[in-house]
Amino acid sequence: MLIVMDKNADDAKIDGVVAAVEKAGFSARRIPGGHRTAVGVIHNGKNTDPDRFLNLPGVREVIPVTKPYKLVSREFKPEDTVVKVKNAVIGGSSFAVIAGPCAVESREQTDIIADMVKKSGGTILRGGAFKPRTSPYSFQGLGEDGLKILAAASDRTGLPFVSEAVDEESLEIVARYADMIQIGARNMQNFSLLKKAGAVKRPILLKRGICATVEELLMAAEYILEAGNPDVVLCERGVRTFADHCRNILDLSAVTVIRKESHLPVIVDPSHSAGRREQVVPLGLAAAAAGAQGLIAEVHHCPEEALCDGAQALLPNQLDILCKLSCQISEMIKGAAI
Amino acid sequence: MLIVMDKNADDAKIDGVVAAVEKAGFSARRIPGGHRTAVGVIHNGKNTDPDRFLNLPGVREVIPVTKPYKLVSREFKPEDTVVKVKNAVIGGSSFAVIAGPCAVESREQTDIIADMVKKSGGTILRGGAFKPRTSPYSFQGLGEDGLKILAAASDRTGLPFVSEAVDEESLEIVARYADMIQIGARNMQNFSLLKKAGAVKRPILLKRGICATVEELLMAAEYILEAGNPDVVLCERGVRTFADHCRNILDLSAVTVIRKESHLPVIVDPSHSAGRREQVVPLGLAAAAAGAQGLIAEVHHCPEEALCDGAQALLPNQLDILCKLSCQISEMIKGAAI
Amino acid sequence: MLIVMDKNADDAKIDGVVAAVEKAGFSARRIPGGHRTAVGVIHNGKNTDPDRFLNLPGVREVIPVTKPYKLVSREFKPEDTVVKVKNAVIGGSSFAVIAGPCAVESREQTDIIADMVKKSGGTILRGGAFKPRTSPYSFQGLGEDGLKILAAASDRTGLPFVSEAVDEESLEIVARYADMIQIGARNMQNFSLLKKAGAVKRPILLKRGICATVEELLMAAEYILEAGNPDVVLCERGVRTFADHCRNILDLSAVTVIRKESHLPVIVDPSHSAGRREQVVPLGLAAAAAGAQGLIAEVHHCPEEALCDGAQALLPNQLDILCKLSCQISEMIKGAAI
Amino acid sequence: MLIVMDKNADDAKIDGVVAAVEKAGFSARRIPGGHRTAVGVIHNGKNTDPDRFLNLPGVREVIPVTKPYKLVSREFKPEDTVVKVKNAVIGGSSFAVIAGPCAVESREQTDIIADMVKKSGGTILRGGAFKPRTSPYSFQGLGEDGLKILAAASDRTGLPFVSEAVDEESLEIVARYADMIQIGARNMQNFSLLKKAGAVKRPILLKRGICATVEELLMAAEYILEAGNPDVVLCERGVRTFADHCRNILDLSAVTVIRKESHLPVIVDPSHSAGRREQVVPLGLAAAAAGAQGLIAEVHHCPEEALCDGAQALLPNQLDILCKLSCQISEMIKGAAI
Repeated sequence: MLIVMDKNADDAKIDGVVAAVEKAGFSARRIPGGHRTAVGVIHNGKNTDPDRFLNLPGVREVIPVTKPYKLVSREFKPEDTVVKVKNAVIGGSSFAVIAGPCAVESREQTDIIADMVKKSGGTILRGGAFKPRTSPYSFQGLGEDGLKILAAASDRTGLPFVSEAVDEESLEIVARYADMIQIGARNMQNFSLLKKAGAVKRPILLKRGICATVEELLMAAEYILEAGNPDVVLCERGVRTFADHCRNILDLSAVTVIRKESHLPVIVDPSHSAGRREQVVPLGLAAAAAGAQGLIAEVHHCPEEALCDGAQALLPNQLDILCKLSCQISEMIKGAAI
Repeated sequence: MLIVMDKNADDAKIDGVVAAVEKAGFSARRIPGGHRTAVGVIHNGKNTDPDRFLNLPGVREVIPVTKPYKLVSREFKPEDTVVKVKNAVIGGSSFAVIAGPCAVESREQTDIIADMVKKSGGTILRGGAFKPRTSPYSFQGLGEDGLKILAAASDRTGLPFVSEAVDEESLEIVARYADMIQIGARNMQNFSLLKKAGAVKRPILLKRGICATVEELLMAAEYILEAGNPDVVLCERGVRTFADHCRNILDLSAVTVIRKESHLPVIVDPSHSAGRREQVVPLGLAAAAAGAQGLIAEVHHCPEEALCDGAQALLPNQLDILCKLSCQISEMIKGAAI
Repeated sequence: MLIVMDKNADDAKIDGVVAAVEKAGFSARRIPGGHRTAVGVIHNGKNTDPDRFLNLPGVREVIPVTKPYKLVSREFKPEDTVVKVKNAVIGGSSFAVIAGPCAVESREQTDIIADMVKKSGGTILRGGAFKPRTSPYSFQGLGEDGLKILAAASDRTGLPFVSEAVDEESLEIVARYADMIQIGARNMQNFSLLKKAGAVKRPILLKRGICATVEELLMAAEYILEAGNPDVVLCERGVRTFADHCRNILDLSAVTVIRKESHLPVIVDPSHSAGRREQVVPLGLAAAAAGAQGLIAEVHHCPEEALCDGAQALLPNQLDILCKLSCQISEMIKGAAI
Repeated sequence: MLIVMDKNADDAKIDGVVAAVEKAGFSARRIPGGHRTAVGVIHNGKNTDPDRFLNLPGVREVIPVTKPYKLVSREFKPEDTVVKVKNAVIGGSSFAVIAGPCAVESREQTDIIADMVKKSGGTILRGGAFKPRTSPYSFQGLGEDGLKILAAASDRTGLPFVSEAVDEESLEIVARYADMIQIGARNMQNFSLLKKAGAVKRPILLKRGICATVEELLMAAEYILEAGNPDVVLCERGVRTFADHCRNILDLSAVTVIRKESHLPVIVDPSHSAGRREQVVPLGLAAAAAGAQGLIAEVHHCPEEALCDGAQALLPNQLDILCKLSCQISEMIKGAAI
């Protein structure tokens, strides 16, 4: 941490800052400059809030230097984490395609779609049984019945499946059926849920909140690792901006940063970013080209009758194209040592 | 809902859209225009997803017309809701000042600050016992012990108090002690928690998420009202943007919109928006001038030793000024029939 | 500038960075920390790009410390700048109200509105003759004829007037007629125009771009001062975000930061921020409460017939209220030594 | 345009709106709904401001339906525009790679880099001679001397070149030397410059502003086409958000929307979006995968000595990889009929 002083801060003020830093249990180091002095704060492993010293007399700015995350960082663990989801794998040199309906609506619908996913070469089935919805009047999911339907489709096709938990109660239920548990974007900073996810014996798919920084996403994963669960997959799914031509702008630079900063695998959700079908394949292919280690996409055999997010669901032939081309692109760039 | 067709959409495509609308249980109405045709969808009270019809052949755009909220809307209940918090009142013609420490740290600290709040003319005490923190390594609050400290300070000063619940478990505990329960910005779309808050017999202070639209805030309140709790106070606390000179930009236009669209009271939190002390009083006064019905601010007698958010805590004399001037400004604009 | 090294950066890499810094003509200072080393760069008054050292081997991050602006900074000139606009004043202890039509449409319209402004207590007249419009098919302003109409209304009422220049050609023409020249939000980083504005003998009203940082706004003003014109008034007019309930969110924290960082006066435009009439008075009063040194607002006697931005134009009685209350609030807070 | 009435708007108010619409020269059509009435406005080709009717009594909302752009739209011209830049081509089925230094610094530097571009398979050379810089104290470019250097390198290598114009004066000079003229992000809404660019006999490379909507970008291009120049290439280069891990988030959904809405070619600038070298290749490949029709990237043989933006300049071998793989990916998706 660097405490930058005002230009006209005199020695008494600088002494005051040094004293405050040392009183708080850190080491202070004066750094005189051309125009102004700074005080370096040496943490020695202890954690502190940069704002703490912001209002001391003569202080102009406080600049954090060390990143706040530990267990998730590549500095802590240099080699890639590979997450096993039953017989499927996310991370390392593999490219995962997770696909399925937004919401489980019926056994028939789920079976048709699971077969589509299997046929297209998808590696994991997805489906929502507990749905977080902006409106209390919207379809909220089939709950445990939905999980039973997914489990049956999973058994039949051999595809492991992932489903979302929205609170502690649903976390326990989902953990009983699913092979992987999703924590959605709205719950990325639901710290109670993250701690519970850290105590569960299932890999976690953690989505980035729509206005979360990459650092906040990594800190959310840190909660899960810190609570004992090392199997976390991160998912970029777009950020909210002024733009109105898509739902959320997909942030592919986040993929490059996560791969550099963290050992955890990172995949991309083009469906929720796009919000409309025609953008899903181009964005999914872009994600593969940017170095994502997998995709999660929504599909539906009959989107105009979907109870939830039909407008963004891929049609069967689009899923075929997405699976085939994204894997090809991922292979191509892996070979190129970028 | 209005379904806008492509310029070159022929009659067959328009017929297809009309048929799809009616199959879904709505009424459709053709609206020919100069360049293109639109199809109006009449809901008759039923709820639907505007995206549902977006991918039908010939459809260019789907535009929602009706707002999705009901119970919270002024169209539903024209007169202002006034929320009683024990002996204090939020809404109507009163101006509420809620103040206290970010986090309860000790009995002594809380007592000193509660006395400051009382002396300055604050009407409700605030204090965090369960703290949502970005880092698992940061101070997480004293929990139930913190609530006991707050309750004692409340008893002694006669100020009712509000404290935050971060999950179902803490909601039950907070409800046992506090006079009002805060749902924080990060939990604004924690729908499970909102439903539980709707079943509690305590008024709820619901903070806007840092990238939530006003409509999403009102929908979050709708969850609480729909679950049976009519006593909700909304709180604007800034939105996340590219700007780096404050923590979150305070959105005072949201105050004017909420007062127009909803009967629920709306207050403003200048402390978390500013993130630094020197901006808190100006922003608090600005909120009063914009028509907010109260403020919630953080204070500390010794901010450089605060365990959480010390940089934004007001000093005692600043709280005095904020209380006095914000009430004066609120009176002034009330008299002016803006 | 602080160059933060990777945790595992060895001495050779640190030496390399030190050498690169010194080769570039700066002084370097090693700052060993608990976990990693940083290298401080001492500018000695020379300017450099922080990104320059970002890709040297072993460098993790480069953090700028010194602010890039000089002439506009309060560190350079501690006392407030007061800008004279003919017989009116902006800055210091005065509160300025600039008002008038969005666009000059006719002599009659301008005369009626100028009388309204005069009667309400406005101090400067505004009116657009050269209009920057998103669409080439929208009304582009009356040009020089509009300036003649404004000049006549200004002579008659005794109100000085401000009008916008959109390029070099219009800058020369506006400078011939107007008492103050506006550089609009879209041109805030039109550096050629800024340099020309620096050479003109007229005060400049410089609006913040809708996604400009405060630092960029100050750097834009630096261009004008550096080119020789010290009379610059800054104007906050809202930033673009995801929010759809107003045109641009008014950023009142920017007002507090500008007043701290710079000696230049700062005013607020609630009309373009709001985009709809009902929000203009609340936001204008909020600006006064936050410490703005004036307002610029649009008015129209018959807004539904306005050729431009009628929806945000104040009605005559609203302008009365805005002038009266904003001045009262400004007085009140000045007396309070916040 | 659709004018939505309040729920309780009576017939008199609806009649008032209909009358106002017809007085303004449009046709009005009543659209009664289940809960409220709307009034459809039929333009008949005339242009109007949607805000115009927003404040009429009883009006709740005004919703534009028709898009404001014409000449740039695919509805107006269905087939792809292909822009010729001397012997190079942008648009249609070709994939263009424009590369070169951020700023021309010297003849030697430009020659070395032009040879790199040629060798890597780039099709057009880029280089800045007039540089828009945030600070008046930063290197502002070599001006006409820089253009002469570029012209010589272009002659020698056979690569046509593009260079930026920042005002009318530089536009004329650049037009004398360069094969294509760039209008930068900061000037996207410099409407005077756009009109002048419309009168020039050179193709224009128009960059999207960092907080411009796609609609605003298309309207900016409309200015150029309307002024007589049909040869416009659009360029996505990232939008400004809260994120701090890249300079601007690259918005690849914009590429898909532009290709759908407009016949103009669209390319992507990964360098300015990334702001740091390590993200440029991944983002460039992602752009190709998303359907961009070309890239523009910055390269430097010795980035740590670059006078401008060295941190984002590609190294020679990175340019090789980018050229080769982006063309391969572009071919692959073209063959797949997405």
